Amino acid sequence: MKILVLNGPNLNLLGSREKAHYGKLTLAQIEKKLSTLAKELKVSLDFFQSNSEAELVEKVQQAKKHFDGILLNAAAYTHTSIALRDALSSVALPFVEVHLSNLAKREDFRRQSLLSDLAVGVVFGFGPNSYLLGLAGLVDHLKNRGK
Amino acid sequence: MKILVLNGPNLNLLGSREKAHYGKLTLAQIEKKLSTLAKELKVSLDFFQSNSEAELVEKVQQAKKHFDGILLNAAAYTHTSIALRDALSSVALPFVEVHLSNLAKREDFRRQSLLSDLAVGVVFGFGPNSYLLGLAGLVDHLKNRGK
Amino acid sequence: MKILVLNGPNLNLLGSREKAHYGKLTLAQIEKKLSTLAKELKVSLDFFQSNSEAELVEKVQQAKKHFDGILLNAAAYTHTSIALRDALSSVALPFVEVHLSNLAKREDFRRQSLLSDLAVGVVFGFGPNSYLLGLAGLVDHLKNRGK
Amino acid sequence: MKILVLNGPNLNLLGSREKAHYGKLTLAQIEKKLSTLAKELKVSLDFFQSNSEAELVEKVQQAKKHFDGILLNAAAYTHTSIALRDALSSVALPFVEVHLSNLAKREDFRRQSLLSDLAVGVVFGFGPNSYLLGLAGLVDHLKNRGK
Amino acid sequence: MKILVLNGPNLNLLGSREKAHYGKLTLAQIEKKLSTLAKELKVSLDFFQSNSEAELVEKVQQAKKHFDGILLNAAAYTHTSIALRDALSSVALPFVEVHLSNLAKREDFRRQSLLSDLAVGVVFGFGPNSYLLGLAGLVDHLKNRGK
Amino acid sequence: MKILVLNGPNLNLLGSREKAHYGKLTLAQIEKKLSTLAKELKVSLDFFQSNSEAELVEKVQQAKKHFDGILLNAAAYTHTSIALRDALSSVALPFVEVHLSNLAKREDFRRQSLLSDLAVGVVFGFGPNSYLLGLAGLVDHLKNRGK
Amino acid sequence: MKILVLNGPNLNLLGSREKAHYGKLTLAQIEKKLSTLAKELKVSLDFFQSNSEAELVEKVQQAKKHFDGILLNAAAYTHTSIALRDALSSVALPFVEVHLSNLAKREDFRRQSLLSDLAVGVVFGFGPNSYLLGLAGLVDHLKNRGK
Amino acid sequence: MKILVLNGPNLNLLGSREKAHYGKLTLAQIEKKLSTLAKELKVSLDFFQSNSEAELVEKVQQAKKHFDGILLNAAAYTHTSIALRDALSSVALPFVEVHLSNLAKREDFRRQSLLSDLAVGVVFGFGPNSYLLGLAGLVDHLKNRGK
Amino acid sequence: MKILVLNGPNLNLLGSREKAHYGKLTLAQIEKKLSTLAKELKVSLDFFQSNSEAELVEKVQQAKKHFDGILLNAAAYTHTSIALRDALSSVALPFVEVHLSNLAKREDFRRQSLLSDLAVGVVFGFGPNSYLLGLAGLVDHLKNRGK
Amino acid sequence: MKILVLNGPNLNLLGSREKAHYGKLTLAQIEKKLSTLAKELKVSLDFFQSNSEAELVEKVQQAKKHFDGILLNAAAYTHTSIALRDALSSVALPFVEVHLSNLAKREDFRRQSLLSDLAVGVVFGFGPNSYLLGLAGLVDHLKNRGK
Amino acid sequence: MKILVLNGPNLNLLGSREKAHYGKLTLAQIEKKLSTLAKELKVSLDFFQSNSEAELVEKVQQAKKHFDGILLNAAAYTHTSIALRDALSSVALPFVEVHLSNLAKREDFRRQSLLSDLAVGVVFGFGPNSYLLGLAGLVDHLKNRGK
Amino acid sequence: MKILVLNGPNLNLLGSREKAHYGKLTLAQIEKKLSTLAKELKVSLDFFQSNSEAELVEKVQQAKKHFDGILLNAAAYTHTSIALRDALSSVALPFVEVHLSNLAKREDFRRQSLLSDLAVGVVFGFGPNSYLLGLAGLVDHLKNRGK
Repeated sequence: MKILVLNGPNLNLLGSREKAHYGKLTLAQIEKKLSTLAKELKVSLDFFQSNSEAELVEKVQQAKKHFDGILLNAAAYTHTSIALRDALSSVALPFVEVHLSNLAKREDFRRQSLLSDLAVGVVFGFGPNSYLLGLAGLVDHLKNRGK
Repeated sequence: MKILVLNGPNLNLLGSREKAHYGKLTLAQIEKKLSTLAKELKVSLDFFQSNSEAELVEKVQQAKKHFDGILLNAAAYTHTSIALRDALSSVALPFVEVHLSNLAKREDFRRQSLLSDLAVGVVFGFGPNSYLLGLAGLVDHLKNRGK
Repeated sequence: MKILVLNGPNLNLLGSREKAHYGKLTLAQIEKKLSTLAKELKVSLDFFQSNSEAELVEKVQQAKKHFDGILLNAAAYTHTSIALRDALSSVALPFVEVHLSNLAKREDFRRQSLLSDLAVGVVFGFGPNSYLLGLAGLVDHLKNRGK
Repeated sequence: MKILVLNGPNLNLLGSREKAHYGKLTLAQIEKKLSTLAKELKVSLDFFQSNSEAELVEKVQQAKKHFDGILLNAAAYTHTSIALRDALSSVALPFVEVHLSNLAKREDFRRQSLLSDLAVGVVFGFGPNSYLLGLAGLVDHLKNRGK
Repeated sequence: MKILVLNGPNLNLLGSREKAHYGKLTLAQIEKKLSTLAKELKVSLDFFQSNSEAELVEKVQQAKKHFDGILLNAAAYTHTSIALRDALSSVALPFVEVHLSNLAKREDFRRQSLLSDLAVGVVFGFGPNSYLLGLAGLVDHLKNRGK
Repeated sequence: MKILVLNGPNLNLLGSREKAHYGKLTLAQIEKKLSTLAKELKVSLDFFQSNSEAELVEKVQQAKKHFDGILLNAAAYTHTSIALRDALSSVALPFVEVHLSNLAKREDFRRQSLLSDLAVGVVFGFGPNSYLLGLAGLVDHLKNRGK
Repeated sequence: MKILVLNGPNLNLLGSREKAHYGKLTLAQIEKKLSTLAKELKVSLDFFQSNSEAELVEKVQQAKKHFDGILLNAAAYTHTSIALRDALSSVALPFVEVHLSNLAKREDFRRQSLLSDLAVGVVFGFGPNSYLLGLAGLVDHLKNRGK
Repeated sequence: MKILVLNGPNLNLLGSREKAHYGKLTLAQIEKKLSTLAKELKVSLDFFQSNSEAELVEKVQQAKKHFDGILLNAAAYTHTSIALRDALSSVALPFVEVHLSNLAKREDFRRQSLLSDLAVGVVFGFGPNSYLLGLAGLVDHLKNRGK
Repeated sequence: MKILVLNGPNLNLLGSREKAHYGKLTLAQIEKKLSTLAKELKVSLDFFQSNSEAELVEKVQQAKKHFDGILLNAAAYTHTSIALRDALSSVALPFVEVHLSNLAKREDFRRQSLLSDLAVGVVFGFGPNSYLLGLAGLVDHLKNRGK
Repeated sequence: MKILVLNGPNLNLLGSREKAHYGKLTLAQIEKKLSTLAKELKVSLDFFQSNSEAELVEKVQQAKKHFDGILLNAAAYTHTSIALRDALSSVALPFVEVHLSNLAKREDFRRQSLLSDLAVGVVFGFGPNSYLLGLAGLVDHLKNRGK
Repeated sequence: MKILVLNGPNLNLLGSREKAHYGKLTLAQIEKKLSTLAKELKVSLDFFQSNSEAELVEKVQQAKKHFDGILLNAAAYTHTSIALRDALSSVALPFVEVHLSNLAKREDFRRQSLLSDLAVGVVFGFGPNSYLLGLAGLVDHLKNRGK
Repeated sequence: MKILVLNGPNLNLLGSREKAHYGKLTLAQIEKKLSTLAKELKVSLDFFQSNSEAELVEKVQQAKKHFDGILLNAAAYTHTSIALRDALSSVALPFVEVHLSNLAKREDFRRQSLLSDLAVGVVFGFGPNSYLLGLAGLVDHLKNRGK
């Protein structure tokens, strides 16, 4: 079972800035934690981060052949990218939406997600742990789908 | 570390009805799964379900003395109960909000939560697994809070 | 064929107050008229009134085993109770929504019903006669459903 | 006691199309059922159907002299015709609004009625039986008005 | 100089009903007053009333050849008829919009006019006198246009 | 019979600017035309213009003792002054609202009047003639009120 | 294959007025162009124009028996007629919605169509050519539907 | 003269939590201050607090026989309970609405009260003193009502 | 301790008009009652009423040096004057907002206050007594602030 | 005459997915059909697809020199890209907007186009045929523009 | 070249209060800085501040004869004064709108300006420097207008 | 002191198109003017323009190390890019937002900026001079920040 871990714009800055919102870990540190969990769950992970909407769209398009599911933090594009939504809808891969911060505590424009209704599930507010919980949820979903 | 698992209206019906939305497990079966996980995490759990807004409010009020955190599926009251919100705000116990179904796929009135911005984090859409992920997230939060 | 006649908050006051809106009959008098009609229609009725949202939710939950349908005047909860809606949706018993007054003539917040789209049909504005018409409509629906 | 049964646009098609929404009976069959009920209730009925807003407006204007009340299914004009509303308001005849389908289950633009707040009462969702219940409600209203 | 006096739905009922809103004069009496004023102003008038949107549209279409301007009380169609608006816009005849009652005192849906921004001017609230003032305003406009 | 002709902010500039909207006549020239008409109608007029909301409010307050009615072009304050509305409501003098331009052709914020529902009637779009029509309408109203 | 070409209110005026919006061709000239194209496509056409909502509704009702599809420019009724929508929905004939002008450049109230979601497709902004493109699209749809 | 002092959900927690919003006094301490004032005003008080909407509704229903007025802090139910509104409307007892905190400084959903338009008057923002001012206002109202 | 009692537009008319809304007392009579209460409370009062937004703004600006708090009935300016709000915010004097009538029973535009969130507290609906309660609340606030 | 055929995000997936919405043809097959039609119409075509908003913007910027018009399916960017709108507005090349699916049948956020009011015309709902109709409409427009 | 520097309500308080929003300089100090810059730019300045909407309106009206442009900080009236807008529109003098604070960081009601669309340009957020930048922009505009 | 001058989509077209909105200068000419001013102000500038949201995001991310502030014209992305907002928020560099045209005179969707509340200040409407004023404002801010 292969999972794509997909991160959107500005998440390359994690750990260096706005720690109140996003925590102290860098993206690499979060990925390391995810790799450890993946081993336990016996799944393999690929990581990809981009600030480009088009690159994210294309990564999703290509994911169909190589992955069983996507763990997705689309960051700002969660709220603005119908293109990303359309790509996810087209490939129809199960995905889980995660966010570091509690969106309900932030600006109004972060209340609306263009992706959530296509997702298996959504996890937000737990800091880096949102990724770990999301991965666990996604893997559980993939394993039990047929049942 | 003690956690209160609090369930709102109609969740006593779980497993018998509307399985498309809520899955096949009964609330007792979900609680059993939670107990197993709690042992692994070395926390103890108490369970409470009520269809009464007032009972839920009072359970939250009393939780302050006896619990370190709350795992909460407020069901319909998520969207209508300012009283429950005020109770949670008053006791200021860390809580995690969970839902079985993916709220983003359902009626518009389920899009708004009166509780989320007070929560540590939110998990929804994973069926019974939402509870397990939520518990893991809550315990992780409680253990790392001081750090 | 057994029908539950369920009345929501403040309907215990009928006949004593706000006669312009609700008419001169007490709830007992309305129930008596319903009993007479029920005999003609050869169905049996049970009556229940509560000011408590939780009691109404639980009465609906239990109705599944004992009744073929519900005649419901949810009063104020018509407009605020997602919990009652969820209970009705869960038991999936046919029900008819009735109101004494013409809701379209009253405050804006009475225009929205959280229950109507789940109902077989809706009757309002005929005073106590709304109940009688609603019962007739419900029984007719139950008898002809399979045809 | 004389009642005008007034049907609006496209109701001449009843029984031949969209049976899921409107049932299997033709308008003639519904009118026959109404006639049977009218005999029981000792009232006489006149039937009129038109697809023209103007014809409906004029029928309502003329009804004042010849009828004691109107049983009205204005169909699409329920939601768009202020002219029909003004006619009903001008003649000030008691009328009951009926619809075959449960409007609350359909498109948003069917939620608003321009007529309901002028009606004695409203009945919808019972299929052809909505007419029978509406007639019963109207006759009861006319007989008890003075009391 | 020839003026078409065009009246919309339900204005044929004037004088017989809802006198609080519309005054005691019949349409014929108002037309007589208009004729008297027309003589003073040295213009000739034609009168037309219809409850049919289509007839009003066609009357407006034909007015181009025979009239210099239109004095229009579109009644309910003021708020619902884009077809009438389009006809007025197509013939591009100067017209004045009048209403008997003060629209600002009535239902919300009477606040919006689909015609006003095409009109020379608007007069409302003066009862039958609205027509006389409107005619005076229209004739003055037609006489002074070129200046 | 005495009428106060009250003009609001910027109307002192009439005739010198924005002639497309407001015409070529100065306020003095309009007042002269009004005086001529007043003689015909056998009423006397007083004129007052102010750019100050407070002065207009006070003029209205004092008008009770000295005038039978008010001809009012409140200009910009039509849309923003609840104080002026309250003054008009307090003195309860009949008044007519007039505007030179056709408000329906202009900015959205000119669509809402805080005064219209208190007025006898409203006239707009006829340029300076709006005043003359408004005066005629007001005098007619005052003369026929008791009838 | 027979197609009904249905035109709504004010389209009888085409070619004589508002050429900026609607072009220089008369409706007859457009129909002639359509006939030429119909020959090429080997379909036959019937033409009908009416300013009456009721006549359009009835034409649609009757179309079921005689036509394979409808080419429809409902003009103003596009935005206001639920009755026309209901007729189209009832007969369930494939239809294509066309408009001469680019609706997106015009008044806000022309942005909403009550018909589009029932149509095969929509074409607007090409002047008379919208009809030809619409016809080609409709015929192509009818020919390839079963494939 | 007897007054019912009615407190809604979470007010049993006063004095122990969220002192920034609600002050340092417990409910018992506030009630003691009220008793002192009541003696001065020569009225007697009864106190009741509940977290249950149904209990509050029923207390209001029963108040009719035993009390002359109600001093009400409905807390969260101020914004959500139509049932409580209906009870207050049914018994038609004069009541005063009070709140400890300045609602205008808090969440948007606390801006709307479902009760205020039925109240004699409203007092908020003065902390525990809101109750004292409200009681004084209520008693003054009851004493001067007939004058 | 010195308090400025500040009254806005049209309050100079109190006692003479619209007694249903505002009661029978004149402003002078209310001020007299306030003076009596002030003596009891051992504070001194200054009174100022103006219909001019600018004068009220300036009075507030100057109040900083001479007063400890403001008792404010801004009347119509409550809902429209950001300038008054800015003045109150700039001087940062504690003030209490009062209104004679129950704003919740009146026009929609009186629901929004531009001042309330800056106030210590708000009192409305008690007629002239609103001032007395407001003064008592303000003095209590000023005395207990440091505690 | 040279036409640029420009396709936006995810259209590279055509033919392989979501065939219910988008049909069975690949983009290459659609382009082939377009080439055949182009030959008939005696115009030449260039094809460009990109998932990148910036690449589409730049292609439009460069189109000015090389093309006479654009056939555009901006897909998701239709609803979110002001940048693309600005590019189209800057180069001021005639373009036609096409969509495969009937946007009126889909999610609400697809109802608004940021491009339509700049387009010559719009065609949607005909599947791949939308492109052919759009090309025909564009070429006709370009040929007849000067006339 | 003569420029009027016009300041609205509460700006006379600058430097003494709310320094976080408005900075430490007094209005006199800002005017001094402006005078220095004016010398450099070879223009002369006149200063005027008022808390009165009417005085500002009149100053604008008179400015036409004496000034080439206006540097305007209308403060609170920016958001509420259509009268000031109308004056600016009438005199049609070029003006620049400035604000000390960053309006986008403040209350929602400061987001809308009734003046901006009439202005040459807008500068805000730079504290006192907003005036200097605004003056430079205005003078540059006046000098280059003809080019 | 080093400043990054960052330009968004379509600004590479400046000087060649839509001169009414954007003026006659090319971006290179504006940059030259900026360089001249920069010398006077003794700061150094770097220029970067891109049509790509991702490139702009990354340029902002990297700016932290190399620049003291950003002069930003985000063009269309001002209104749609939360990603750009997040980048600016993350690096927390002072920036000034500039626009050539007066946004308040243009389409509604240009009224909302996703960036302004993070900016030091905003300048728009002065054509190319907006950049010069913005640079002056930014440098002044950077120099005086510590004071």
